[in-house]
Amino acid sequence: MTTAAHITRTALNLFYRHGFHASGVDLLSQEAGVTKRTLYRHFPTKDALIAAALDLRHEQFMSGMQAFVESAPAQQRPLAYIEFIARWAASHDFHGCAFINAAAEFSQATAAPHMQAARHKSEVQGYLMTLCETAAVQNPELISMQLFLIGEGVIVSSQVNGFNSAVGEAALETAKTLLKVRPRRAPSGA
Amino acid sequence: MTTAAHITRTALNLFYRHGFHASGVDLLSQEAGVTKRTLYRHFPTKDALIAAALDLRHEQFMSGMQAFVESAPAQQRPLAYIEFIARWAASHDFHGCAFINAAAEFSQATAAPHMQAARHKSEVQGYLMTLCETAAVQNPELISMQLFLIGEGVIVSSQVNGFNSAVGEAALETAKTLLKVRPRRAPSGA
Repeated sequence: MTTAAHITRTALNLFYRHGFHASGVDLLSQEAGVTKRTLYRHFPTKDALIAAALDLRHEQFMSGMQAFVESAPAQQRPLAYIEFIARWAASHDFHGCAFINAAAEFSQATAAPHMQAARHKSEVQGYLMTLCETAAVQNPELISMQLFLIGEGVIVSSQVNGFNSAVGEAALETAKTLLKVRPRRAPSGA
Repeated sequence: MTTAAHITRTALNLFYRHGFHASGVDLLSQEAGVTKRTLYRHFPTKDALIAAALDLRHEQFMSGMQAFVESAPAQQRPLAYIEFIARWAASHDFHGCAFINAAAEFSQATAAPHMQAARHKSEVQGYLMTLCETAAVQNPELISMQLFLIGEGVIVSSQVNGFNSAVGEAALETAKTLLKVRPRRAPSGA
């Protein structure tokens, strides 16, 4: 791994666990095991490091989410998105979505991390729309937005109150109702 | 208004618009028009001021939300909760939910503002549960959690990407589907 990649990864970890403002350059260089001088050579400003960390997180999230979702048949992928979000929210060391956190800390819509968060979420919405179209869901525009909102709800609810299996079940039930997934019939012959 | 109440209100405005870490004590005292000495006499630490600001926001939110919801007949109150959230998210100067923002900035679940956010959300969930029970909704535990997640989704989605009428419509449609609200029949005689 290059030094820049190592610093970026360390910074993402710190920003995610402790927040963007709370993670100062002293802590960042210390955790990365580099001098501040080296850190500044690669990232002239903390803003540049925040941008790089969010870029990395975007790639991580999209590739992990898509790999999970696309392991399901096309018809089941819209539901698999909610399953992915629920599993992630239930995972160890979950602190919400780095992009929602960035938008919260940099609350002005014109702040660079906020705009990066908006682009990330638009990309997720676009992906969900494609999933719904490919699965031949009726009204893919509405359903993809509904699924997106449920996923966001699971993320923040689990962040604030901790994951709770009732949250995962409520989200999956909502998605199934919207997608009109009926319970599979018991094998015939009973 | 007492000096403490005035400082608390000013602090809530700043925390909400600029974030908790980004609003320093210098800015807080300047905006409130008091000396730092006066501020510290009322709030010995910034943490104490954050706690007071979140207490104030909890009261504001609960009373505003309950007044809106309870102006509807009991049967329609679960849906009115989603209407309230969508209207709020569409309002001028919306920067998400102060409690979600607090949980994002103070990401450790044991941090005082994070715990205050968790209590707030639990209270909202409990209120929604009561609304669903009173409206004689089937499975109030599940439906109230589903409505809660949709509301949270509307809040963060509008915070990150700005409010969009498609978000409000998707949320209301989801709630109506879950609550099995059918469109009213056209007056007979046509």
